[in-house]
Amino acid sequence: MPYGFTDIETPVPLVDLDRLSVNLDRMAAYAALHQLALRPHVKTHKSARIAAEQMRLGAAGLTVATPRELQVMSEVTDDVFLAHPPLGAKIRRVLTFAEDVQLRVSVDSHIAIETLGAACRQRDQTVDVIVEVDLGMKRMGVTDPNDVVRLAGAVRRQPGLRYRGICFYPGHIRMNVEQMDSHLDTLSGDLRQVLETLDHAGLAAEVVSGGSTPAAFRMHHIPGLTEIRPGTYVFNDRDTFTMGACTWEDCALTVLATVISDAVPGQVVVDAGVKALGREPIRVSEGGGYGAVLDHPEVSVARMSEEHGILDISDSLWRPEVGEQVRIVPNHACIVTQQFDAMLGVRGDIVETWWHVGARGRHSPELAPPPLSI
Amino acid sequence: MPYGFTDIETPVPLVDLDRLSVNLDRMAAYAALHQLALRPHVKTHKSARIAAEQMRLGAAGLTVATPRELQVMSEVTDDVFLAHPPLGAKIRRVLTFAEDVQLRVSVDSHIAIETLGAACRQRDQTVDVIVEVDLGMKRMGVTDPNDVVRLAGAVRRQPGLRYRGICFYPGHIRMNVEQMDSHLDTLSGDLRQVLETLDHAGLAAEVVSGGSTPAAFRMHHIPGLTEIRPGTYVFNDRDTFTMGACTWEDCALTVLATVISDAVPGQVVVDAGVKALGREPIRVSEGGGYGAVLDHPEVSVARMSEEHGILDISDSLWRPEVGEQVRIVPNHACIVTQQFDAMLGVRGDIVETWWHVGARGRHSPELAPPPLSI
Repeated sequence: MPYGFTDIETPVPLVDLDRLSVNLDRMAAYAALHQLALRPHVKTHKSARIAAEQMRLGAAGLTVATPRELQVMSEVTDDVFLAHPPLGAKIRRVLTFAEDVQLRVSVDSHIAIETLGAACRQRDQTVDVIVEVDLGMKRMGVTDPNDVVRLAGAVRRQPGLRYRGICFYPGHIRMNVEQMDSHLDTLSGDLRQVLETLDHAGLAAEVVSGGSTPAAFRMHHIPGLTEIRPGTYVFNDRDTFTMGACTWEDCALTVLATVISDAVPGQVVVDAGVKALGREPIRVSEGGGYGAVLDHPEVSVARMSEEHGILDISDSLWRPEVGEQVRIVPNHACIVTQQFDAMLGVRGDIVETWWHVGARGRHSPELAPPPLSI
Repeated sequence: MPYGFTDIETPVPLVDLDRLSVNLDRMAAYAALHQLALRPHVKTHKSARIAAEQMRLGAAGLTVATPRELQVMSEVTDDVFLAHPPLGAKIRRVLTFAEDVQLRVSVDSHIAIETLGAACRQRDQTVDVIVEVDLGMKRMGVTDPNDVVRLAGAVRRQPGLRYRGICFYPGHIRMNVEQMDSHLDTLSGDLRQVLETLDHAGLAAEVVSGGSTPAAFRMHHIPGLTEIRPGTYVFNDRDTFTMGACTWEDCALTVLATVISDAVPGQVVVDAGVKALGREPIRVSEGGGYGAVLDHPEVSVARMSEEHGILDISDSLWRPEVGEQVRIVPNHACIVTQQFDAMLGVRGDIVETWWHVGARGRHSPELAPPPLSI
């Protein structure tokens, strides 16, 4: 039964269903237009329901980062990319879910290739493998095209592993979209070198997977790319907005909070702090606070404690009263959903539905003790 | 059955049981020695099992910040302080649990007093009320002693509310302990003014509640204080250590992580990022990273993504291999437990037990839809 916001205990994440729908459609249409496979990263929503909607709109499969995300998404599709090398006790658990889906994993080391290959042979399973390449992010992945060839060759020599291609994450391309194109040119040049070196070695990449939300709609400018993996686009957030990659009206996720104090002059305190919003900076500018009020974007969350968010109202005429509800656009949507077990789907001022953040956390509730690998 | 670390899927929080025990005993002994009531804040562990141990060691009651913490802790003790003003839909839920416990809440506004009083009368319940005073933190609480008197008087005039005293949070006293005493002198002077003004108005505070972990062991220097509410002391963390309020060996909580990449020179990547460690700064110094390796404190988590932590090994001779496990002392323990559903209790290299982070999240699992107030 639909109900209004005043019945809701705060803090809680609200998803604007109309905005979500626009965001989902826009990316699906872009990928279809440019014949890029769309493999959304579910880290942003961690919800089987939203993932199913992404699949319905034409996604080729899903991208995940954790075994728990893999577990939940294996109920949604049979084509999942674990874009995080499984090592140690994770391997066993990951291969358990690989019985239900065509699993693809990324690797960037010989140790990951050897241990995964051995585990696959022991269980008589086959897993698709993608070699991760670093094109400027300096997080994961090898840079030298000859190292890419060495890893790809090692994958091909491991029974139990099937070499499919390469992936990269262009998360460093986060500045204003105006500056983006020159960075994409550099990236395209580096990528071309990698692809040519693989071709010459007889290890041509069938899959060339890249993409993040800020650069997503420029991905058709990268020659050779076959697939994109944006995550944040479903909700967008204040960071995406600040770098110019979406409008304020594209921000579909807010945290509903309640004003609990106006005792200290120049500020009001809401009940959403680090344990609701996360302490994520605006990456293109310093000192921008940790979120802003949806209807008063000039008011930011200037400071936080764990369960307190301090709104700086000194630059605003708005004076919310104690007890009043406010909606906050978070800097980074993916950190917000991680803090909660459920999201509410709203249209206007009415709550229409709710979803579990089912892939949050690390382990199946049914496992005891949960942190043990099954 | 005890088991070793290599069976554990990472990332996961480990609690060193010996260190936890030392931390719990030390604070209990301090409070007993100085005849201060100890009312630990459970936000740090959110675990009924650790809270029960705090009660067994002589705690007068527990402090909580959320209705979910109140719900879980109402099974542990019948004396709970909700140090967060309940407003809006929260009031109903909070009063439901107040049937099982002697509930005490903090307020700093007339609106909070009036709405809570009305709800109590409607349900024929009585709640203890503490007026929050600001002694320099500039977060919650009134500063002017006459405003404290006005709020205390308003509480006394509300049937359903029982005026008990005042509280404050000295969270701004976070610098090196050497500088702490002069700040405590200022705070003590301000507090004396408040207490005298209340006395003259016939509103003497029976409860005078303060205390945080960094300043905890100096609290007996504050005249008039009756109670302390430290939270972080159970685990301590890199922030507590950096400000000189504990030793490295007092840090009981670590995040067990696995090295997943060494492809980029000068760094290794572990599978603990923002969604395991939180993005909490070291507050007494900038640029200190987001955690440090337990056995190699010179190695910090220099950068993070959601599921990646980048260890800067350029100042260390230590060269961990891909697949190796590392233990990271987080900057802020309270944010780590919030990310997980369970913690493992370890002694040496052996896992002896595990606990649910039962008060994590916002709502009872049995509520559907969970975000609705009951």
